[in-house]
Amino acid sequence: MAVLIDNLQYCNFSEKIFRQLREGGVDAIHVTIAYHESFREMIANLERWNRWFEQFPTLIMRGTQAHHVREAQQTQRTAVFFGFQNPSPIEDDIGLIEIVHQLGVRFMQLTYNNQSLLATGCYEDEDSGLTRMGRAVVAEMNRVGLVIDMSHSAERSTLDAIDHSTRPIAITHANPDWWHPALRNKSDTVLKALTNSGGMLGFSLYPHHLNNGTNCRLTDFCEMVAEAADRYGAENLGIGTDLCQDQPDSVVEWMRVGRWTKDIDYGEGSASNAGFPPQPDWFNDNRDWDNLRDGLREVGFSRHETDGILGENWLNFYKSSFGPA
Amino acid sequence: MAVLIDNLQYCNFSEKIFRQLREGGVDAIHVTIAYHESFREMIANLERWNRWFEQFPTLIMRGTQAHHVREAQQTQRTAVFFGFQNPSPIEDDIGLIEIVHQLGVRFMQLTYNNQSLLATGCYEDEDSGLTRMGRAVVAEMNRVGLVIDMSHSAERSTLDAIDHSTRPIAITHANPDWWHPALRNKSDTVLKALTNSGGMLGFSLYPHHLNNGTNCRLTDFCEMVAEAADRYGAENLGIGTDLCQDQPDSVVEWMRVGRWTKDIDYGEGSASNAGFPPQPDWFNDNRDWDNLRDGLREVGFSRHETDGILGENWLNFYKSSFGPA
Repeated sequence: MAVLIDNLQYCNFSEKIFRQLREGGVDAIHVTIAYHESFREMIANLERWNRWFEQFPTLIMRGTQAHHVREAQQTQRTAVFFGFQNPSPIEDDIGLIEIVHQLGVRFMQLTYNNQSLLATGCYEDEDSGLTRMGRAVVAEMNRVGLVIDMSHSAERSTLDAIDHSTRPIAITHANPDWWHPALRNKSDTVLKALTNSGGMLGFSLYPHHLNNGTNCRLTDFCEMVAEAADRYGAENLGIGTDLCQDQPDSVVEWMRVGRWTKDIDYGEGSASNAGFPPQPDWFNDNRDWDNLRDGLREVGFSRHETDGILGENWLNFYKSSFGPA
Repeated sequence: MAVLIDNLQYCNFSEKIFRQLREGGVDAIHVTIAYHESFREMIANLERWNRWFEQFPTLIMRGTQAHHVREAQQTQRTAVFFGFQNPSPIEDDIGLIEIVHQLGVRFMQLTYNNQSLLATGCYEDEDSGLTRMGRAVVAEMNRVGLVIDMSHSAERSTLDAIDHSTRPIAITHANPDWWHPALRNKSDTVLKALTNSGGMLGFSLYPHHLNNGTNCRLTDFCEMVAEAADRYGAENLGIGTDLCQDQPDSVVEWMRVGRWTKDIDYGEGSASNAGFPPQPDWFNDNRDWDNLRDGLREVGFSRHETDGILGENWLNFYKSSFGPA
């Protein structure tokens, strides 16, 4: 039986959501445990997950290696893999890359919207590409098996990372800008370079990344996936919903503003639409994966291709990405 | 072939010492990575070890499970297991116990000479036993598989820990006080309670713990081990040399004083003998294990008992101690 993997969620997790994950048949999720956190603050987030693993051993399990996805499926649980959307937890210390890998972290974005010590984010005016430390960090991430994620990075920085990395990288949650021209979505040039080097694109279901936002139709989304499969190969595609279920709006403000400004930044939102946008009605939560499966079949994907996009492609990527080089 | 394990070293490690470990046939060592360090400072010490594992892959390997000892022996390397001599790295945060276990830490002292948040050290005037947090921490250490080490703890606190712990504990580096009455050495009452509950005593070769200090004779030491075997069973005995090779005297001051006083504390030393004491001539460094082996045989230990004391007993303890309860 094919596995189902959502390669990006940032829900306000609870027993309710863990049960919904199982109801929806989700075998693995990659969850964000840092936006702007320091190393020590990120550790506190890991501790919270450890507590959940102890409290809900029949629902969830810690995921650090690809085989944990099948183990979760066989025991009817969801394997939880960790990632950072920002390199803030590694501070200015390259030694922390191996430390966080030893703690089970498997994805790290080099930037989150802004310039970081490593590269440029997608909302900066100037994109200066990978920094000196950025190149050193990419090499170290390659060595230990920490996946480079450029979902929130700017164009040149993303191309630099693909070029400099000796292993395939990921864009865990974004869509093509030829479908919906948001700053967070990715150019055809980037997506070609990504997938030509064996990298993975995870399609986002976050409304600001969708054509017509919350009102995006399932067919429109799936036709975009079909076009992407023609351009980039179905085997390089997966899902990273960016589902932020049950989060209060204070959290989206933390994601956007962190501690880097005293002003308000609305990111992809606006003053009149500052909070989390409502999900499209065909993907409200983890029980709606069958809608997506049906939609993909209806635009012409084979069962095999659909299984790939909904999990098997991420699983293959996990197999070759999480161990030492 | 029997394994050789030294269950406590705090050398100023270097390629020279890693080579001496192999010359001496040492298959595993337990090394101290924290005396007074905060969590973040301890992480920096782990990073240094990660760098050494990367630099010297043919000499040393990271040890986290018992089978790593045999793997090291078979590949002619030394497996390095981590421990703390003080609970300072877990701060006041019980969640850090599982985090440090995930990072490979396998031993933690509840105190280092002084009162800690958990228990009382052997140099305090009053010994109030395990604290509230101490009892919670013992239970959590039992759960995850982090061994309680009471080498530097006071009598009542040690008995409390043995009593409260549901798994055998360790005194990794100390000697019986009936042989040499130092504050750091242990009473017959403690050693009986320790070994009756399956715990392990590692004999120290640190001169301040030896009868006649630096001038202690090998025969005298080995006769003490024979007496201890009569009282406590040879299968509960091992070695924890406390070897501090190549350390500058500034390090022994850090060990004794940390940041807890502005005054000087001489610990087991004195104003006229403040530095590291010279080792006895029969155990200068890791190439001298054959002297100890011969000495044990000469006082009447069988080959099997000698193999046990020099490594196999610790290996058995590792097998049952490092995994979840």
